[in-house]
Amino acid sequence: MRIEHDFLGEIQIQDEVYYGVQTTRALENFIITGHRMNTDFIASFGIVKAAAAKANMRTGRMPIKIGNAIVQAAQEIIEGKLHDQFIVDCIQGGAGTSMNMNANEVIANRALEILGEAKGNYALISPNNHVNMAQSTNDVMPTAMRICTITKAKKLIAALEDMAATFTVKGDNFNHILKMGRTHLQDAVPITLGQEFYAYAEATKRAIKRIRENVRNMHFVNMGATAVGTGLNAEPEYIAFVVEELSRLTGEEIHSADNLVDATQNTDQIAEFSSALKVTALAFCKIASDLRLMSSGPRCGLGELSLPARQPGSSIMPGKVNPVIPEVVNQVAYQVIGNDLVISLAVENGQFELNVMEPVMAYNLFNSLTILTNVVNTLNHKCVKDIEANEERCREMIDKSVGIVTALLPHIGYEQSSAIAKEALKTGASVKELVISKGLLTAAQLEIILSPSEMTQPGIAGKQFLK
Amino acid sequence: MRIEHDFLGEIQIQDEVYYGVQTTRALENFIITGHRMNTDFIASFGIVKAAAAKANMRTGRMPIKIGNAIVQAAQEIIEGKLHDQFIVDCIQGGAGTSMNMNANEVIANRALEILGEAKGNYALISPNNHVNMAQSTNDVMPTAMRICTITKAKKLIAALEDMAATFTVKGDNFNHILKMGRTHLQDAVPITLGQEFYAYAEATKRAIKRIRENVRNMHFVNMGATAVGTGLNAEPEYIAFVVEELSRLTGEEIHSADNLVDATQNTDQIAEFSSALKVTALAFCKIASDLRLMSSGPRCGLGELSLPARQPGSSIMPGKVNPVIPEVVNQVAYQVIGNDLVISLAVENGQFELNVMEPVMAYNLFNSLTILTNVVNTLNHKCVKDIEANEERCREMIDKSVGIVTALLPHIGYEQSSAIAKEALKTGASVKELVISKGLLTAAQLEIILSPSEMTQPGIAGKQFLK
Amino acid sequence: MRIEHDFLGEIQIQDEVYYGVQTTRALENFIITGHRMNTDFIASFGIVKAAAAKANMRTGRMPIKIGNAIVQAAQEIIEGKLHDQFIVDCIQGGAGTSMNMNANEVIANRALEILGEAKGNYALISPNNHVNMAQSTNDVMPTAMRICTITKAKKLIAALEDMAATFTVKGDNFNHILKMGRTHLQDAVPITLGQEFYAYAEATKRAIKRIRENVRNMHFVNMGATAVGTGLNAEPEYIAFVVEELSRLTGEEIHSADNLVDATQNTDQIAEFSSALKVTALAFCKIASDLRLMSSGPRCGLGELSLPARQPGSSIMPGKVNPVIPEVVNQVAYQVIGNDLVISLAVENGQFELNVMEPVMAYNLFNSLTILTNVVNTLNHKCVKDIEANEERCREMIDKSVGIVTALLPHIGYEQSSAIAKEALKTGASVKELVISKGLLTAAQLEIILSPSEMTQPGIAGKQFLK
Amino acid sequence: MRIEHDFLGEIQIQDEVYYGVQTTRALENFIITGHRMNTDFIASFGIVKAAAAKANMRTGRMPIKIGNAIVQAAQEIIEGKLHDQFIVDCIQGGAGTSMNMNANEVIANRALEILGEAKGNYALISPNNHVNMAQSTNDVMPTAMRICTITKAKKLIAALEDMAATFTVKGDNFNHILKMGRTHLQDAVPITLGQEFYAYAEATKRAIKRIRENVRNMHFVNMGATAVGTGLNAEPEYIAFVVEELSRLTGEEIHSADNLVDATQNTDQIAEFSSALKVTALAFCKIASDLRLMSSGPRCGLGELSLPARQPGSSIMPGKVNPVIPEVVNQVAYQVIGNDLVISLAVENGQFELNVMEPVMAYNLFNSLTILTNVVNTLNHKCVKDIEANEERCREMIDKSVGIVTALLPHIGYEQSSAIAKEALKTGASVKELVISKGLLTAAQLEIILSPSEMTQPGIAGKQFLK
Repeated sequence: MRIEHDFLGEIQIQDEVYYGVQTTRALENFIITGHRMNTDFIASFGIVKAAAAKANMRTGRMPIKIGNAIVQAAQEIIEGKLHDQFIVDCIQGGAGTSMNMNANEVIANRALEILGEAKGNYALISPNNHVNMAQSTNDVMPTAMRICTITKAKKLIAALEDMAATFTVKGDNFNHILKMGRTHLQDAVPITLGQEFYAYAEATKRAIKRIRENVRNMHFVNMGATAVGTGLNAEPEYIAFVVEELSRLTGEEIHSADNLVDATQNTDQIAEFSSALKVTALAFCKIASDLRLMSSGPRCGLGELSLPARQPGSSIMPGKVNPVIPEVVNQVAYQVIGNDLVISLAVENGQFELNVMEPVMAYNLFNSLTILTNVVNTLNHKCVKDIEANEERCREMIDKSVGIVTALLPHIGYEQSSAIAKEALKTGASVKELVISKGLLTAAQLEIILSPSEMTQPGIAGKQFLK
Repeated sequence: MRIEHDFLGEIQIQDEVYYGVQTTRALENFIITGHRMNTDFIASFGIVKAAAAKANMRTGRMPIKIGNAIVQAAQEIIEGKLHDQFIVDCIQGGAGTSMNMNANEVIANRALEILGEAKGNYALISPNNHVNMAQSTNDVMPTAMRICTITKAKKLIAALEDMAATFTVKGDNFNHILKMGRTHLQDAVPITLGQEFYAYAEATKRAIKRIRENVRNMHFVNMGATAVGTGLNAEPEYIAFVVEELSRLTGEEIHSADNLVDATQNTDQIAEFSSALKVTALAFCKIASDLRLMSSGPRCGLGELSLPARQPGSSIMPGKVNPVIPEVVNQVAYQVIGNDLVISLAVENGQFELNVMEPVMAYNLFNSLTILTNVVNTLNHKCVKDIEANEERCREMIDKSVGIVTALLPHIGYEQSSAIAKEALKTGASVKELVISKGLLTAAQLEIILSPSEMTQPGIAGKQFLK
Repeated sequence: MRIEHDFLGEIQIQDEVYYGVQTTRALENFIITGHRMNTDFIASFGIVKAAAAKANMRTGRMPIKIGNAIVQAAQEIIEGKLHDQFIVDCIQGGAGTSMNMNANEVIANRALEILGEAKGNYALISPNNHVNMAQSTNDVMPTAMRICTITKAKKLIAALEDMAATFTVKGDNFNHILKMGRTHLQDAVPITLGQEFYAYAEATKRAIKRIRENVRNMHFVNMGATAVGTGLNAEPEYIAFVVEELSRLTGEEIHSADNLVDATQNTDQIAEFSSALKVTALAFCKIASDLRLMSSGPRCGLGELSLPARQPGSSIMPGKVNPVIPEVVNQVAYQVIGNDLVISLAVENGQFELNVMEPVMAYNLFNSLTILTNVVNTLNHKCVKDIEANEERCREMIDKSVGIVTALLPHIGYEQSSAIAKEALKTGASVKELVISKGLLTAAQLEIILSPSEMTQPGIAGKQFLK
Repeated sequence: MRIEHDFLGEIQIQDEVYYGVQTTRALENFIITGHRMNTDFIASFGIVKAAAAKANMRTGRMPIKIGNAIVQAAQEIIEGKLHDQFIVDCIQGGAGTSMNMNANEVIANRALEILGEAKGNYALISPNNHVNMAQSTNDVMPTAMRICTITKAKKLIAALEDMAATFTVKGDNFNHILKMGRTHLQDAVPITLGQEFYAYAEATKRAIKRIRENVRNMHFVNMGATAVGTGLNAEPEYIAFVVEELSRLTGEEIHSADNLVDATQNTDQIAEFSSALKVTALAFCKIASDLRLMSSGPRCGLGELSLPARQPGSSIMPGKVNPVIPEVVNQVAYQVIGNDLVISLAVENGQFELNVMEPVMAYNLFNSLTILTNVVNTLNHKCVKDIEANEERCREMIDKSVGIVTALLPHIGYEQSSAIAKEALKTGASVKELVISKGLLTAAQLEIILSPSEMTQPGIAGKQFLK
């Protein structure tokens, strides 16, 4: 055991652990979720700490030997080592000071070890004076959140790109299949199954664009803002150097925010990013819901699609298979929507120079990114790729439908079309039969007017027959 | 024109209007929604003011002549008169002071008029000293909100009771109709259409119970709390009298809250009441969604129900009819859920002795009550009452379904049942045929096992055949 | 009275009104909110109908005489006439068909009148065949929503630009005033009051950028998609012409969406736009909350700012003035957040080729735009412009604060600084006194280290004294 | 390795694990959150399975030897054993079938082991035929959710009871301390610090009552409903027995729901329970916010309370201590509010005979219960118990305040009081001085009128001096 102290007093710490007195206090203070920090988030703290140490060496304020040891320790964290030393609860008071101090202490002790010194010898390498040099939780935490968001957004974008590609392939495969389009769950006019999947691809591509645009905001950080954004204790050169180092470490163009006071106290861009995830979740809700409706049945539903069977659907009903993958998409979407509300509430409650609710923002933002990425990959690889269309069923429904009457509108007008529709529904007769029997159009004309290509593309079906 | 003043200065007011200087300032300050106070809410202010004046006369603090004039003016407001004099915007700063002062000024001026005096003669009857005697916005506003909630909840409960009755009648009418039960939108096991409508009735009855329980909380008011709950300037006798008078005026048992400080600063019961509305909205979302699904078609959907046609469904598709009534139910439900979030946000932001966000709470609570009541009546009278079942379609689907295999589970086990289900789906053969052809059960046995009454009530269908 | 009919039957209509049978049915069906369509939204329908008629004349499908009459009638609606004829409830089933038909009927009848014909003579000018030519509610409604959003967003952006300018002016005025910066509501390090107002300006400018970027999406419309996005009954030339006409009428560059099927069924961009409003509301929540905190008092609060007195604050407490304007900002923000949830719920529930919940989306989107614009103008003109700083109070607090100890960190280290802070808090002594008495730094050094300019800009205060 | 199969095919399973083929499929299908089931929830499945086996033995359908082994295995799960065998992700498609099958498989294999048989010998003890006898996921899952909610609610109630007791003790301790009451963050009229803590106690007690009432609903379960609520395959005796056994195992009075179809498809009571948690969170938001405001400072804030220092507050600002415990209360509250929205979205999306979104409901409900319980305990033991009042500071503010003028209202009227208040604010003079110098009241009268006991209790302060 070693003894550490802060201004509240001394505390005993097991010698093998790398965290120190402040982390230990936080561990005792915050027994809330039992969840620790996201691993990408821990690595982001490593990146920030390495960048700061490098910048501080460049300004000459940090002794090179100490700086190098800090960088090496931080680098290990970036590579995934020592993550078990990040033990503070994800939801915590103090605006992330406990996360920052957890990082400062782990890095200080690991740096001491690298230099062959005993852990806890903070006179040599101090978590506050050295690892946290020219920094405050109030610039480290927002910056680490942004770095982590960039990292995680890349994974989400990759998942969405794969998903869009799959939808497009399915669109190609299904583009020849004519089916009844539906509005209000009521038979409308024909569409191709391919057109529907192309629309899903388009919505997915729009999600990619949305995430990409929002990631741009994440590249502007407030390093050097220190406590309240004024930059007290952070030299201008340091501020310039630290974003260069961040850029080098991340391979991204990281910039200083224009107004550091603003960037320290305002978190609206976190809410904005989360909103982009929420909107994406909403779009996938719709897609998942369509897939569940189209695969409803097998005998007493719409039955237009067959989703791949992934597991028995029931503990009591033999042979039942459920659309479990789209169902989990919906549930993840609800979670992302709820997480977005948490973030909104946290953002709403900023006061003066800081928003102290950042830990719960980070927790929800990273959860949303993780589960959304996971579920898009799940939907893609465990469902959409193997969807099969029930072509015959689609055709059968078109054939008996009344909705095709809309294509006759330019030829026989709204009034007469309505009358035909009404009679068809009442008598069970087909629209075609009625139109021919009433001498409104010929069978040959109808053949063209009601052909798939005429009905599913812009233009008046059978325009040549218009008087 | 007359001249009125407050401690901010003088202001000119058109002589015919009953409101005064403070209302006028509020009118200028808050140009937000353009919506005025709900008429039930205005009446509730009348009730509170009449009760306070009566209580103040009983303690002897209020001169009888003035008190009687105030009561008469307040009574007119209760009866729906002078509502056009309540002109302040529904969303306003100041915790409702502008609403309270609007009421105080209108009543003072009307009372002056009743006594044959000129409007604005506040030396005789003062909005603050007389109409607001022993009161503060901080007890008047929460009390008026509770009175209004009681009033509006009665209308909602009446609507829900009618709705539950209609669902029960439909349950009776449809109880003989066997249909395929669905879980995950997949064919499950048979159920009767009546059982489904009985479930809607049950959910509706539970909503009634929920609203009723929550209305009870609304009967405890903080009159006499005055500014911060301590009751400064409100005599104990007055506090006792005012709830007696409120009870008399409302016909409800109104009580003093146990802890007036708590009752003045905390608004959690408003959030709780709104939650009850939200949960009710959620229940109706599900019902509306079921109705839309069951009436999907007419040719390419489930087609189990026919909703009454209320209006042409499309500006382009002739003869199309949409389930517009259930659709409006869903939309109102979303609005109620959103309103509930507004209320939650407002409740969250109380500080110290008061929650100043009460105006936006009241606005959303009363909007929710109004639209929920309207839409339940709409659903009942313009849709559910005239729903017809497509009995033949229901039977047709049951006949071809595989889900009935579950009834065979106790007879032939999960493994064999699964195999039958799989074969039926693959070959298109019926479960009955397969079971008989494999010699697992006889046609006579199946006749009983698969009968509607056996399959839709607790118990093992065809238990007598179990070995 | 005249008699009109649709395929559900005949109905009597008062002859002076311009709306017809389908509007009348909708009026009876939807008694929900009692609110009618937003006036900008009505005008947007006018724009869409005029553009469609012009495009239809250009393709030759619409007779010129009829087309011109339609355009003239639509133009009147754009100019604000006939708005009292738009009577359908804002929340309605049917995806806006009732709004579209309300527009179609009013325009048809007004066009008939222009041509000297009797209202209801739909054989001549039909609401469906002519006014709605080549259109469906499913392209008209989303397009009108987008046009209206563009219109309303301009007003919001103008309000935000004024607001940002005011914040900047205030920043200039207050930039010389040093005050205690606060994090966690605890004394942190000094900042200038100007820096705080510049941060508000920056957040406001970011809101402008956010709205602007989102408005761009609103310029892509699905006119020509007709019923399900396939463009049935809409000729390719018409599709090209109609966006040209929309551009001409609005003065904006309006384009056809890339994928009309997608643009018809997906409403994620509506949710995205609403999110931008929500995030803006969150940013203003923080600003309003700061203003309320800084003006708390007058004697028992922070008292750093004096907000202009807009109205007496209490019906019972004489002389009390409350921060009513920031309070209404918070409440409007909650409403916008709640409205955003309504929109999210509506967007979530799209199915197949359409999202039928568009009316409730439009209602909430336009409400949010209206009240946010109003409240930003209110905050600007009725509060921020006339805010005064209590300079003396700010200085007094700085002088007695302990937080300035942070500026000593680079000079005396974290440990010694903590000890000084602790002793100052315990004994009531000032940081300056203690540092001098302990011989850590000289008075002359402290004069420089603790000067406003050193403490509120990036850099180590008194760097020249570092060893 | 052993080989298991279901109707989708064979799968290899490591022999030491207790779960089987269906659990394995779910593990592969749902890689979402990485979080497993809550331990109380796992135990609840044990309770349900034990109760069902006992009931099935009583009806004679379950062989005693098998039944006893199942009960023994289930009992082990209740006691916390085998929890590492519950490996399925918390968010999953399939309405909880994977959780139910995870339980069925673990219990079947453990029961086989108890009987000395090899795992996987499902011919002897089948997860479906025996462990799941007379059950469906659709009754097991909702019942286990209710049992778990009852368990967890007890812990929350205990935490709230302790919390209420602490608030009451603090109220007693602080009841003699007069302080300035605040509304709108503006000085209002005096109150005692004790009255404020009593109000917190009252709000906490109301939370207890609210949770208790909602727990009652959780005692009505749908066991015996099986697949769609009709009770197919569940004998009436079994239905009666199973709630008896559940009551015995839980020590609670568990009843059959009145309408099993309703209880199977509707989840509004889950939303209702979650709402009760949300409202509780809102109430604690307000309390936490008050504590943060009252402890603001130490030198530049209100400074009325000193919260116990739990950890250094800053990585850069020496000696800074932050209100980290109330801050974590706010964040947990936001999480609970967000979780409630997730549950609302899930409840909204029920369809027909089932709501398949139950897994995400359970996940969020149990998370909310856990973190709310944790944070209430944290607030109690790590903050409120050790709060100290700064009595002198409270008195100092009262002495200089203007708000006490309200107590003079009955004596000198609203007009004159307003004038005094205005003058006091302008000149800095005290209210007392001004009133005496103007000869309005005597010093002796003011001594009584402005005494703490007169000002903080109902009644007119110094009533004896009224003319």
